[in-house]
Amino acid sequence: MAFKFSLEATDTDTAARAGRISTAHGEVLTPAFMPVGTAGSVKTLTPDELSAAGADILLANTYHLSLRPGAETVREMGGLHRFMGWSGSILTDSGGFQVMSLSPLRKVTDGGVEFRSHLDGSRRLLTPEEAIRLQDGLGTDIAMSLDELVELPALPEVVRGAVDRTLRWAARGLEERERLRSAGRGAMALFGINQGGTDAGERARCFEALGAMPFEGFAIGGLWVGEGRSLGLDMVEHECAQMPRDRARYLMGVGHPVDVVEAVARGVDMFDCVLPTRNARRGTVFISTGRLVVKNAAYARDERPLDPACDCYTCRRFTRAYLRHLFAARELLAMRLASLHAVHHMVQLARRARRAVTEGRYRAFREEFLSRYHSGDTLAPSSAPA
Amino acid sequence: MAFKFSLEATDTDTAARAGRISTAHGEVLTPAFMPVGTAGSVKTLTPDELSAAGADILLANTYHLSLRPGAETVREMGGLHRFMGWSGSILTDSGGFQVMSLSPLRKVTDGGVEFRSHLDGSRRLLTPEEAIRLQDGLGTDIAMSLDELVELPALPEVVRGAVDRTLRWAARGLEERERLRSAGRGAMALFGINQGGTDAGERARCFEALGAMPFEGFAIGGLWVGEGRSLGLDMVEHECAQMPRDRARYLMGVGHPVDVVEAVARGVDMFDCVLPTRNARRGTVFISTGRLVVKNAAYARDERPLDPACDCYTCRRFTRAYLRHLFAARELLAMRLASLHAVHHMVQLARRARRAVTEGRYRAFREEFLSRYHSGDTLAPSSAPA
Repeated sequence: MAFKFSLEATDTDTAARAGRISTAHGEVLTPAFMPVGTAGSVKTLTPDELSAAGADILLANTYHLSLRPGAETVREMGGLHRFMGWSGSILTDSGGFQVMSLSPLRKVTDGGVEFRSHLDGSRRLLTPEEAIRLQDGLGTDIAMSLDELVELPALPEVVRGAVDRTLRWAARGLEERERLRSAGRGAMALFGINQGGTDAGERARCFEALGAMPFEGFAIGGLWVGEGRSLGLDMVEHECAQMPRDRARYLMGVGHPVDVVEAVARGVDMFDCVLPTRNARRGTVFISTGRLVVKNAAYARDERPLDPACDCYTCRRFTRAYLRHLFAARELLAMRLASLHAVHHMVQLARRARRAVTEGRYRAFREEFLSRYHSGDTLAPSSAPA
Repeated sequence: MAFKFSLEATDTDTAARAGRISTAHGEVLTPAFMPVGTAGSVKTLTPDELSAAGADILLANTYHLSLRPGAETVREMGGLHRFMGWSGSILTDSGGFQVMSLSPLRKVTDGGVEFRSHLDGSRRLLTPEEAIRLQDGLGTDIAMSLDELVELPALPEVVRGAVDRTLRWAARGLEERERLRSAGRGAMALFGINQGGTDAGERARCFEALGAMPFEGFAIGGLWVGEGRSLGLDMVEHECAQMPRDRARYLMGVGHPVDVVEAVARGVDMFDCVLPTRNARRGTVFISTGRLVVKNAAYARDERPLDPACDCYTCRRFTRAYLRHLFAARELLAMRLASLHAVHHMVQLARRARRAVTEGRYRAFREEFLSRYHSGDTLAPSSAPA
């Protein structure tokens, strides 16, 4: 019950907000980008490097951790914070998204999602209640409600059915947290997830019910799944307009720098995405002037850092030439140094957005960011992979 | 010409020595364990982590670097130190060993070694002179002479022939360095390599000639290739007894903790080996009480650090349970944290050996080390892989 969200500033020209979340593990400044630590590690990086990059919260995946090493093992080891050595805040997802994307077989009923583990094929059942218990076992600061996702495009009645089920599961998750609390557990905050595909009416209907439930924050789910940036941002704008000012807003799975800057302008507070670090491990990083494919031969003798405007460890210490060599030689240090830049870049982008809001100049910040991002400065003329 | 070796202490009960090498990149305390940075990176680790582990010198492989990114590229980027961001000393090998072990085709003549690149199949020729020029191009502090290796067991005349050729190549390497120096380059030290298989007579004959050449140090090559620890240590003992006191002695490719402690007792100053870090990447680390297979299920809930006696970053921050989980989940952070311990462990083992020598208690140190190493304390009873 340590959770608190306070709004510290709102922009006048846009819907951008600057806020602060308090949890049992410290303060989270918003807008916030949450690096993703899927299996109890943000791939290749230590918790100290995440802190040094400015991260104060990260996301961990309940599906992965509950299969391996198991929520019970994590609980016995003192919870996820202690297990992985991370002293900041943690948000866990419900596990639902990854059941849908990773399990070889799954069956959704009102009871929950039946699935098979992608690791050993064992049959499992994820109910809205179990999703809450697993996250409590991990010791998360912010848990997510189990929701039903539909693949888009979908028939209106399918979208409607998923919204109805998501609402029933949201209520059951809250009830389960109450049961845990009466047993002295369940201290974490709980966020509800709004669904409704790309149907503004369904999304509004979903939030009418969801917004009345005692969630500490609200997430926008089921977007950035192929519907296009413009439609996605429209949905975000409509949803944020409907959401109460005093609750945190989390746009799930979004993390391209341009999307983050545009979604903040529409009122979003929190983001997570594997894209920046997954790209980085493959030799492509976002820098302030665009997308740098550092493994390209064009950078073989480039003595500049990945991003001349960046002050992360990688950019302070190493050249593009060295990074390019490490990728060419398939050295693991390549993935690590690129990931470090990627996390730092996204966390600090959110931090800069926050400062722009508190200083009342978000519109100018956004324009400057976009024009710089599309400039391609310091990038090789050809971006064809080597 | 910045190279200097000074002997600071010799043990009374054993042949162990404590010394100090000065190079243009600082001081190297001996006995020294050199982590191996094959392709311009000690796999998974940053130069800062190597420094933090206490390393003051590392080994880089001329074969790998000259094929990719090329000695010329490294030279243009300001030399290997600058390219990889390492401010300590560097020793490079001649490339010969890896030509023999990695090239799909090679032909050894008096002229040198003809081979094909394992990367692109291109035909190359490594001469004793080219080995020196490549190492000079990399900007190394200590270069190695090209030698001829024979696979053991070998006929006496084959061993004899390789010794003769190694001696001719040694002289040609020194001459090439003189030519470089007259052109204002070739500032690095050069070590000669003694060969002779497991024939003490051949090794003595080799050193009679090699020891008369103006090398700054001498290496013992061609051992630990299957001849057995006891025979290998006998060879080391005989060779060290023959070597001048005022020159550094380097036992190539040796790095099991027990071998290091035993070889120091016989008068060796320098070591390198990929074994500790290669093992670490596969989930096995040397600790003070033996060999720990951390990926074993036995450690799934073990809250102790890898080595309770170690103060490396990994042991200060993480449990065996977490490391075991990271290996089970194939997280890259596992390889990194285990490698960090591995480097720290070997570098600090050499450092502790040095202190024992300067304090005149090497025999007691060796006994204590061996008894502890074989105790198996804190290790799981069964060492069967999970």
